[in-house]
Amino acid sequence: MTDLILACDFGGTKLSAAVVETAVFSQSNPQWHNHQRRFSPPQATAQTDIATMIDMGRELLAGKRPLTVGISFGGPVDYKTGVVRLSHHVPGWENVPLQDRFEEAFQAPARVDNDANVAALGEWRFGAGRGVADMLYVTVSTGVGGGWILDGRTYRGADGMAGEIGHTVVDPNGPLCLCGKRGCVERLASGPYMAQDVAAARGLPADDVTGKQVAAWAEMGEATAVAILERGAKGLGMGIGNAANLLNPSCVVLGGGVTKSGARWWQLVRQTAQATALPEVQFAILPAALGDDAPLWGAVALAE
Amino acid sequence: MTDLILACDFGGTKLSAAVVETAVFSQSNPQWHNHQRRFSPPQATAQTDIATMIDMGRELLAGKRPLTVGISFGGPVDYKTGVVRLSHHVPGWENVPLQDRFEEAFQAPARVDNDANVAALGEWRFGAGRGVADMLYVTVSTGVGGGWILDGRTYRGADGMAGEIGHTVVDPNGPLCLCGKRGCVERLASGPYMAQDVAAARGLPADDVTGKQVAAWAEMGEATAVAILERGAKGLGMGIGNAANLLNPSCVVLGGGVTKSGARWWQLVRQTAQATALPEVQFAILPAALGDDAPLWGAVALAE
Repeated sequence: MTDLILACDFGGTKLSAAVVETAVFSQSNPQWHNHQRRFSPPQATAQTDIATMIDMGRELLAGKRPLTVGISFGGPVDYKTGVVRLSHHVPGWENVPLQDRFEEAFQAPARVDNDANVAALGEWRFGAGRGVADMLYVTVSTGVGGGWILDGRTYRGADGMAGEIGHTVVDPNGPLCLCGKRGCVERLASGPYMAQDVAAARGLPADDVTGKQVAAWAEMGEATAVAILERGAKGLGMGIGNAANLLNPSCVVLGGGVTKSGARWWQLVRQTAQATALPEVQFAILPAALGDDAPLWGAVALAE
Repeated sequence: MTDLILACDFGGTKLSAAVVETAVFSQSNPQWHNHQRRFSPPQATAQTDIATMIDMGRELLAGKRPLTVGISFGGPVDYKTGVVRLSHHVPGWENVPLQDRFEEAFQAPARVDNDANVAALGEWRFGAGRGVADMLYVTVSTGVGGGWILDGRTYRGADGMAGEIGHTVVDPNGPLCLCGKRGCVERLASGPYMAQDVAAARGLPADDVTGKQVAAWAEMGEATAVAILERGAKGLGMGIGNAANLLNPSCVVLGGGVTKSGARWWQLVRQTAQATALPEVQFAILPAALGDDAPLWGAVALAE
């Protein structure tokens, strides 16, 4: 028996794996023992991605058997059975028993959860949310998703759907979202939607603008980009304030590319969230500490 | 030693107490052993209300000592210490150690929580929410408040403030709420605010209209009342849909006077809530089963 944990992260286009020693749980500055990333090629399927990940795990373990395996999956998962429901990025993931596949491959108990829950767990156990009992994690990126730690453990909801802050409505007269509603947090605050709105307002082809560019243009004072980015920050802030009124978490941790939009963006998110929450509902809004590694560290915590 | 539980409910203007046998926990149709209500007079203070409640408890117990005491309080309470923070209705409640006072008076362990949490617990243990793990309880009355049961237990949040669905914003361009924000659920859906809006629209003195009348006028087809009541139902439905996206409860239980506003009101609340939640987020919206007794039954469950 070894004291190694295998952590795996099935991202949309990227596969990551790491091996850590169980000693990380008592370290103040935990480090990977061994670590690898590979891109999931455009023609990837569930089967090729699983085979690649198992390969990476075997290489990293170098013949040793792990104590446990933790897996983050970028799509809906049934946590209790460890079965993936589907992927929006890679074909063939419908009803794949991912937990069973990894338990067989590594002869060790495995746990699987969706990336939002796992990233929340990672930030809580190893990142910005260390030491609190109640935390909301929100990723603001191509979409807006979230995960909860409540009373010191992952809260998943009745069907594992908890954390969908991206599709809470903060402006019923706002722009139309693909989900069919108006003024969802994701419609206002996600990178691609902000890019689409700036492109439309400036008469540019939609493909010519990215969320990153919106932030860069806003930084330079371009009026349309400023307005769209500020609307997004306020929408996100209102969604966070509403969530805080409902659950009263100690802190809210924000990750994802859009959080790199500068000081003004952070200020507006914080101001709006605090103005939306009741005065007695106090919370800190903190930047994620683990960046893209949050799901991988969360997978370690999942396997704890 | 007896097998009696004393349950107490400090409402805004009404004091209720009941004694039940511990056998109620295994009964399918539990009943009071003994039961009393008294009105809290206009000149009441914390001290007179406590004395009245202790009197009622002693009468009901008829010399027997209870096994435990559960207390619902209509205002903010520190659950861990059992200390009342304040009352918005009766003076003198600042920092009153209510749990200690009752433990002394009845020589038995006591538990205190605010009425929203306790009513949620009552509906979950004895009412409409029996058997589910995750439930939101919302009371729609003079205010709009809520309580959570998550993973089979009361969830209170970092500072006991969880459940404030009444002050989540569902329309940032809506009417101004006393809390300083626009378009809070409470501003749109509570009885007094709906009455105020109907009075203003019809040029009537504000005191001449009640929430009950709004519902009665809407029932008769009076256009202003219909519009205001429908706006309230939709605002509440949106708040519930947002909460469901965030927490994915199995059911939402609605209590309070405004829920007696008729079939059309219920239909709009349900439609809007389901349209606001993602298609994968499924939940039932159920009428509370215990009515005004929810906090008293919840106090029994609190003492369990």
